[in-house]
Amino acid sequence: MTESNDHLIDWLRDAYAMEQQAETMLTAMSERIEHYPDIRARISEHIRETRRQADMLRGCIERRGGDVSTIKNMAARAMAAAQGLGGMFASDEIVKGAMASYTFEHMEIASYRCLIAAADEVGDVETSRVCAEILREEQAMAEWVFEHLPEVTRAFLARSETAGAEAKV
Amino acid sequence: MTESNDHLIDWLRDAYAMEQQAETMLTAMSERIEHYPDIRARISEHIRETRRQADMLRGCIERRGGDVSTIKNMAARAMAAAQGLGGMFASDEIVKGAMASYTFEHMEIASYRCLIAAADEVGDVETSRVCAEILREEQAMAEWVFEHLPEVTRAFLARSETAGAEAKV
Repeated sequence: MTESNDHLIDWLRDAYAMEQQAETMLTAMSERIEHYPDIRARISEHIRETRRQADMLRGCIERRGGDVSTIKNMAARAMAAAQGLGGMFASDEIVKGAMASYTFEHMEIASYRCLIAAADEVGDVETSRVCAEILREEQAMAEWVFEHLPEVTRAFLARSETAGAEAKV
Repeated sequence: MTESNDHLIDWLRDAYAMEQQAETMLTAMSERIEHYPDIRARISEHIRETRRQADMLRGCIERRGGDVSTIKNMAARAMAAAQGLGGMFASDEIVKGAMASYTFEHMEIASYRCLIAAADEVGDVETSRVCAEILREEQAMAEWVFEHLPEVTRAFLARSETAGAEAKV
């Protein structure tokens, strides 16, 4: 199971880097939001979850004998993918920001779904449990965003029709 | 409703560019897959759906008096986001490819969810209907990938344990 163990730790590192990227992007986004207090509040809540998730992942990595100090090299691909969505996160349209965060949540959901299968395969019960817990939080956040996309779209369009309402975020 | 009409046509153009990007990435990915015939078959089916979706979107754009000839400038942001996932699509791991396609499907799902709200807001019944139809196809594809992620992960790990099984896609 050497190869499978190596893949599992690589993927845990990818996930750790992904959560760090998530914290950076969500923090920047929430600081720019002026006119959508509900979204800002939900993002703030999810930033707290994201920090805790990163801690939990670091615990899994360390329990498996790895560390996160070399993460920058290991997770370049996950970072590139995240940064590709950066343009949408930094958009002046709240609609694009909401879409980006919904998309990124699903990169996370896919990661944890695969990590659970990989952890089960090598018999790492604790990593499987941690990833299942994180998966549920990501799914809850994704569901919240999905439910709010139409309302955000309507609010954004209404503001754009209002003369003088420059700030769109 | 001038501003809302302008946003709707911009977003339809973004969606058109996104589907073109999807076709490019899915085609490249499916041509590289050697060892996962089920995934390859489902991707091929979705490429055909994607082409038809792009045609339907072009119809919506043209009915609203727009055209797709200037799409390259209009949709730079959507393209950048898509290309950010390109590294995952082009990965030598089928697992990363499956994650990328799951993620991209949700960028599409978010887009159509917003487009439906925008079309309803300006009273464009046909665009709303078209986007709802495309949304259902994207959700079906996303659901298929979600269901298959554990199996793909296990198959990938099993191959990686087999000496001489170099090709991972």
